[in-house]
Amino acid sequence: MERPRHQGMAKNTYMRWRLPLVCLLWEVAMIVLFGVFVRFSPEADAHWEEEKQEMNLTSDIENDFYFRYPSFQDVHVMIFVGFGFLMTFLKRYGFGAVGFNFLLAAFGIQWALLMQGWFHSFKSGKILIGVENLINADFCVGSVCIAFGAILGKSSPIQLLVMTLFQVTLFAVNEYILLNLLHVKDAGGSMTIHTFGAYFGLTVTRILYRPNLEQSKDKQGSVYHSDLFAMIGTLYLWMYWPSFNSAISDHGDAQHRAAINTYCSLAACVLTTVAFSSMLQKKGKLDMVHIQNATLAGGVAVGTSAEMMLTPYGSLIVGFICGIVSTVGYVYLTPFLESRLHIQDTCGIHNLHAMPGLIGGIVGAVTAAAATEDVYGKEGFIKAFDFTGAYRTRTPSVQGGFQAAGIVVSLVMALAGGALVG
Amino acid sequence: MERPRHQGMAKNTYMRWRLPLVCLLWEVAMIVLFGVFVRFSPEADAHWEEEKQEMNLTSDIENDFYFRYPSFQDVHVMIFVGFGFLMTFLKRYGFGAVGFNFLLAAFGIQWALLMQGWFHSFKSGKILIGVENLINADFCVGSVCIAFGAILGKSSPIQLLVMTLFQVTLFAVNEYILLNLLHVKDAGGSMTIHTFGAYFGLTVTRILYRPNLEQSKDKQGSVYHSDLFAMIGTLYLWMYWPSFNSAISDHGDAQHRAAINTYCSLAACVLTTVAFSSMLQKKGKLDMVHIQNATLAGGVAVGTSAEMMLTPYGSLIVGFICGIVSTVGYVYLTPFLESRLHIQDTCGIHNLHAMPGLIGGIVGAVTAAAATEDVYGKEGFIKAFDFTGAYRTRTPSVQGGFQAAGIVVSLVMALAGGALVG
Amino acid sequence: MERPRHQGMAKNTYMRWRLPLVCLLWEVAMIVLFGVFVRFSPEADAHWEEEKQEMNLTSDIENDFYFRYPSFQDVHVMIFVGFGFLMTFLKRYGFGAVGFNFLLAAFGIQWALLMQGWFHSFKSGKILIGVENLINADFCVGSVCIAFGAILGKSSPIQLLVMTLFQVTLFAVNEYILLNLLHVKDAGGSMTIHTFGAYFGLTVTRILYRPNLEQSKDKQGSVYHSDLFAMIGTLYLWMYWPSFNSAISDHGDAQHRAAINTYCSLAACVLTTVAFSSMLQKKGKLDMVHIQNATLAGGVAVGTSAEMMLTPYGSLIVGFICGIVSTVGYVYLTPFLESRLHIQDTCGIHNLHAMPGLIGGIVGAVTAAAATEDVYGKEGFIKAFDFTGAYRTRTPSVQGGFQAAGIVVSLVMALAGGALVG
Repeated sequence: MERPRHQGMAKNTYMRWRLPLVCLLWEVAMIVLFGVFVRFSPEADAHWEEEKQEMNLTSDIENDFYFRYPSFQDVHVMIFVGFGFLMTFLKRYGFGAVGFNFLLAAFGIQWALLMQGWFHSFKSGKILIGVENLINADFCVGSVCIAFGAILGKSSPIQLLVMTLFQVTLFAVNEYILLNLLHVKDAGGSMTIHTFGAYFGLTVTRILYRPNLEQSKDKQGSVYHSDLFAMIGTLYLWMYWPSFNSAISDHGDAQHRAAINTYCSLAACVLTTVAFSSMLQKKGKLDMVHIQNATLAGGVAVGTSAEMMLTPYGSLIVGFICGIVSTVGYVYLTPFLESRLHIQDTCGIHNLHAMPGLIGGIVGAVTAAAATEDVYGKEGFIKAFDFTGAYRTRTPSVQGGFQAAGIVVSLVMALAGGALVG
Repeated sequence: MERPRHQGMAKNTYMRWRLPLVCLLWEVAMIVLFGVFVRFSPEADAHWEEEKQEMNLTSDIENDFYFRYPSFQDVHVMIFVGFGFLMTFLKRYGFGAVGFNFLLAAFGIQWALLMQGWFHSFKSGKILIGVENLINADFCVGSVCIAFGAILGKSSPIQLLVMTLFQVTLFAVNEYILLNLLHVKDAGGSMTIHTFGAYFGLTVTRILYRPNLEQSKDKQGSVYHSDLFAMIGTLYLWMYWPSFNSAISDHGDAQHRAAINTYCSLAACVLTTVAFSSMLQKKGKLDMVHIQNATLAGGVAVGTSAEMMLTPYGSLIVGFICGIVSTVGYVYLTPFLESRLHIQDTCGIHNLHAMPGLIGGIVGAVTAAAATEDVYGKEGFIKAFDFTGAYRTRTPSVQGGFQAAGIVVSLVMALAGGALVG
Repeated sequence: MERPRHQGMAKNTYMRWRLPLVCLLWEVAMIVLFGVFVRFSPEADAHWEEEKQEMNLTSDIENDFYFRYPSFQDVHVMIFVGFGFLMTFLKRYGFGAVGFNFLLAAFGIQWALLMQGWFHSFKSGKILIGVENLINADFCVGSVCIAFGAILGKSSPIQLLVMTLFQVTLFAVNEYILLNLLHVKDAGGSMTIHTFGAYFGLTVTRILYRPNLEQSKDKQGSVYHSDLFAMIGTLYLWMYWPSFNSAISDHGDAQHRAAINTYCSLAACVLTTVAFSSMLQKKGKLDMVHIQNATLAGGVAVGTSAEMMLTPYGSLIVGFICGIVSTVGYVYLTPFLESRLHIQDTCGIHNLHAMPGLIGGIVGAVTAAAATEDVYGKEGFIKAFDFTGAYRTRTPSVQGGFQAAGIVVSLVMALAGGALVG
């Protein structure tokens, strides 16, 4: 049965053998590495019956699965449907965007399970995986999907797979530096996912700069239905972002709080996006690209601080600012980046992920620095920032400093890594 | 990057300044009011560690977040994707419907958090919000989305925002009268959400009656793909309705029961919708508008009674009747309302929300009046209707009377409010 | 309001009276049977307050609702959106596929609740239903949706409803034989859902063989947007498959493990699907039918074994093999089946469900036969295979034998049943 094939799925005539070979060899390598290293975490292992008795748990509902699985599925939808469909607004790249996003993500999560496992879940020679590892793998791949948004339409599948391989590796290293060495909090990934992913992608697209791409600008138009498909992506990202920012927070109040803060920030962001989109356009019409993208900036910008005591009005303020920054970015900054800096940012990730990610890192640093035992409660304060063990004596202002250092590290890793891969 | 703009996103030439100003001023007001009034509920506050000890809770899983968050996300999808895409069946209003629905809802939930907070979660000068407040805010905005369905294509964004402002306010007042003064049960909102929202919208559209609208009837046609987009809306509403009706029910059996009753009612409703759609059409063809809408009436009609001991066969009966009533309404009543009463009901909300909502109120009153200690168990009876404190001595038949009064109050509030706003 | 009607929604001129009559009579019969037989399970009944005390449960969160409801909703989305939209890739059958799938499933779940209830939840004359029954009803209807994929475009609604009636009945009988008589494990339904459903559908389509169908081949083409709609179906099936395979597993580690194994298998499957799709096509282009379907085979193939200690690398191996088998099936086997065996398999369910289902049964048998107390732990071993009561002395190798017998029984039931119904 012959069926049409669309632009973007295949240009490279060498691909016939190279793509299959890369995929198969890669998957064989995964099987070998998983065979050597990966096992179930105690909560997913059949020995859990005994584990439960040792840990004095009275109910199966104490299994981490029930704390995190619903959020995991929401994050999963964001990565595969959200990011995939958000990129369908371009007339000719619709299926390519969704299809390649699918391939990249499926490819990346396996490598992410290994890389993050070696750094974070390695015990007596084995990586022990549970639902939290699945969420973290999805997060890691999320940063690849972000970078993909910058180079959409400019690279072959092979190039994308190679980029994924390196980006996941660097992501895990950067995450290790932030979370383990700097002891930084970043549950929603403003720094590790958004800042890192976006600047990585922007560096790569700068290096892949092709002047003649502008001639094929007509391909970049959107059509009526492609805008509705893109809205599916937008809405799923918008709706599930509270799950994204709360998915790996501490059990209990932290997850609860992270969801509320994100909900508030996103709501405020819609209002200022509409305001500025209407204000900056001729005749006051709304630009659909802004509605599809800038409305999400509020979720990015509370990624670090959502699990902290940011408070609902604090979240509104962050969302308020980010809707403005992101929309103004689409109107003025994207054309500037392309014409002056030769950065062709197909989906405008600088406005949706890079700037809001940086703001998110800063908001996180400030919120951490402003923390007091009065606001958090004595035990809540220690739990929220994990001020135990070696970090028992760390003060909020020192924590704020380390948070700020985390932003710089993520930025440097992204720029250096992107340059290397590009 | 110039991109096409579609019908419905902007007609008003004044909008350039008015829409931005309204959005920005509104959002600033929200920030101020949230700053003064809104704080985290104890279960979302970092002090929860201490709270937990006081309340003798042994596990983080006892946090309300884990009881309600999955249902919250389902409701969230219904409001933003369900209602948004359900309205995309019109050829020319597709993006406008989804986009405006997005704007209205994001605008409305903030005001709903405040209004409902003052009435229901106000403690020592502060509104304490948790996941249940987020669900209630989504519910409140749901009634706005319903009303929007009646006036789709007839009003500017500014008018819609003003309508949202007033409707949310009246919704909260009506809800307060029903739940607090009349002590009525309405977890799935047959009265507070559907009856109120639909009659409010119908009154507004009556007042906005424009005879020449009929001339532009061709815009109201649907095309092939718009019907598939609308089915996305339909299916998400249909699938997640059990979450809608169970989201704020009591923990445990009540949530469980509400989901089962709704599942049964919706399944029955599909069968009678198909039967009557086929029967009433020339040549027995199915009308897609019926499939897209009337199949949902079963969910509306068990909104009040789903958490009660309606029983699975009772639910089937309710769904059976509502599929018929709703489909017959689309065939005979909508044209009648338009030609005789000058009510232009773009999406047919009278058939999907108004009539099934009234039926739902009545079914709830009857189910409550028929309750016995035998059926509910001694403790279950008290818990189900909250017959404690001042209501210790209320009998089922009295409760049924109050439930019926709730229907009347909702209807009066909707008609009076709609007239005022219109 | 006249609206266009699409191909597939109605051809039969007799339908005007037959379809309504069948639907109404059926629904009345359901109400009577539900009235006689169906009641709430103890966990959904208002008596649960007392039940809780008897069972010594300290918290409402111990209600099965909280263990299974999120997975139920994911499964619900798979059945109605996943299977429905997966079949929209055909240009002319888009709405018919989604609409009929909706009708079939709503019709089937009611009958499934009764049939499965009589076999599995029948206590003192009543069927007691809870959330697990809803999941099982959705599973049962899933096998009907699979069979529908083979005959898409070839049958009237009435024929589909009759097929649903018989298939659900046979499904319940087959399930009873496997789970109760053979004491076989099959939580994700490789045998009961996929093998049974697919071979049932293939037998029916063989009998409905119409040579002239090939002349209308042009209707089977896809268009650009129909491929994007189909990807919505694909992605929701792919993302939520971990919920499908874990939905009815034992509480705790089994659900956790089933989700992880399925996640791994699906990820591997994408890579080999892309590899073989690219390798087997002219010029190395990717075929969208493969991406839309074969990527899911990994979920089918761990249906039986996902809750066992298959291990992550074992899952990768299964996914690796199934991506290849399924893609090769689309390229070589589907044309062969049609030209030689006169089996017109519209959606290629032989490649997505039949073969991977058989592989899944075999993997399950092998994994069960290879189980040891060392790997599972003493208590975990007994719990995983339910080696209690009459099965106290069953050994892993005997269990493996029974699992293999389950495959044969499912196959025979499907072929015999399909022949009967066809």
